[in-house]
Amino acid sequence: MKKKNKKVNAAILVIGNEILSGRTQDKNVAFISNWLNSKCGISVDEVRIIPDVEKTIINNILILSKKFDYVFTTGGIGPTHDDITSQSISKTFKVKYEYHKEAYKILEKYYGKKKFNDGRKKMAKMPKGSKLIYNPSSAAPGFITKNVLSLPGVPSILNSMIENCKRYLVSGLKVHSKTLNLYTVESNISKKLGQIQKKYKKSVDIGSYPFFRLGKIGVALVSRSTSVSKLKIVNNKLLSLAKSKNIKILN
Amino acid sequence: MKKKNKKVNAAILVIGNEILSGRTQDKNVAFISNWLNSKCGISVDEVRIIPDVEKTIINNILILSKKFDYVFTTGGIGPTHDDITSQSISKTFKVKYEYHKEAYKILEKYYGKKKFNDGRKKMAKMPKGSKLIYNPSSAAPGFITKNVLSLPGVPSILNSMIENCKRYLVSGLKVHSKTLNLYTVESNISKKLGQIQKKYKKSVDIGSYPFFRLGKIGVALVSRSTSVSKLKIVNNKLLSLAKSKNIKILN
Repeated sequence: MKKKNKKVNAAILVIGNEILSGRTQDKNVAFISNWLNSKCGISVDEVRIIPDVEKTIINNILILSKKFDYVFTTGGIGPTHDDITSQSISKTFKVKYEYHKEAYKILEKYYGKKKFNDGRKKMAKMPKGSKLIYNPSSAAPGFITKNVLSLPGVPSILNSMIENCKRYLVSGLKVHSKTLNLYTVESNISKKLGQIQKKYKKSVDIGSYPFFRLGKIGVALVSRSTSVSKLKIVNNKLLSLAKSKNIKILN
Repeated sequence: MKKKNKKVNAAILVIGNEILSGRTQDKNVAFISNWLNSKCGISVDEVRIIPDVEKTIINNILILSKKFDYVFTTGGIGPTHDDITSQSISKTFKVKYEYHKEAYKILEKYYGKKKFNDGRKKMAKMPKGSKLIYNPSSAAPGFITKNVLSLPGVPSILNSMIENCKRYLVSGLKVHSKTLNLYTVESNISKKLGQIQKKYKKSVDIGSYPFFRLGKIGVALVSRSTSVSKLKIVNNKLLSLAKSKNIKILN
């Protein structure tokens, strides 16, 4: 994996009526985002969930692929009529939508010549010039077209393929994080917390997230930075803040 | 609740670094979407997840509030420095960011005058002209500004408030759905399924979703339509398709 000495970002485009309607709970966003953060030093800066509508897919791919270093799409690369991600990406970049020779061979071998019907053949069709993202669990590959990586929607299959995306990614500066769990309420620390954030706003992002645990209310303070030393300084300031207010620290 | 004899749609804007980073699994999208569908006849047509960055929030509110009948925002209305939804919406619509008298009274009563500190007072500040969405679980209200409804990010609190959004919504045509669970693989039915979808594309949306249950592979066919009679016709066609291929039906 090549490295860049700067921040590298990505967007995730979730394609699927079933997520929008609330029928299915998306799990891919958190998975991809955690993986990109921890394994590639790439941060996800925007997510969109859109329906299986060609025009909408094209518009969003156009916008996101210009705005971010990478775009990950999930869903819509299966064999049925509502799987239109591949042809939509072809139209977006004005390249042919055609059989990928290697993908065709992989699928033909997996299903056997007799059972390799039209629906299954469809999964070998992709934008001309795409490179494959191999699928160790159910054969049908994902693919990368320009800076757009297309993965399936089924979480178990997507999860099995994610490591195969790595060869196509240039990694950025890793974002480190520290979490401090405090038994307090946000409004008890918000003023001083805001002052600390203001002082270090260029190098560290501090997030404040209320939680409920074992019947008690708490706040998780999550600091994130590409600089380990700055992160340490901010964490010490937060520890001092907690001590000055006699707040019990959980971790 | 007033009714419109046409489709009414909404977008959800999830505001929060913790969702983007994968630290927290979003649960609000599925909840809001299910509630809007089933209780209000409103369909969610787009979701975006964005960071706690003022400029980004403003840009997205501008775009989504023009494009959709309603926008629901989640997150960023608490007492800390990273809670910037209210002031960002004020800037979007160029209205003052000021104390809402009723919200101030509610919070002052809830916390008691002595404990009503600056962080807590911040939760009473909102765009001028906003109307309150009452919060039965933790007092701090959400609010509606033009067609933008702002709710908190903590799911249990959001869930407790959702019914209080109803008074501000005009309901649309209800989208009905029927699900058929088949013990088959998508590629076995994809051709005929595509033909049925093509024939009824103006009135019914058919989605095809693979599932794994008790070690067996299956496909859930979900048909959705505002017309109950068209839905019935399509469902019968799908039943005939299953029977013609000797596919076991689960439901």
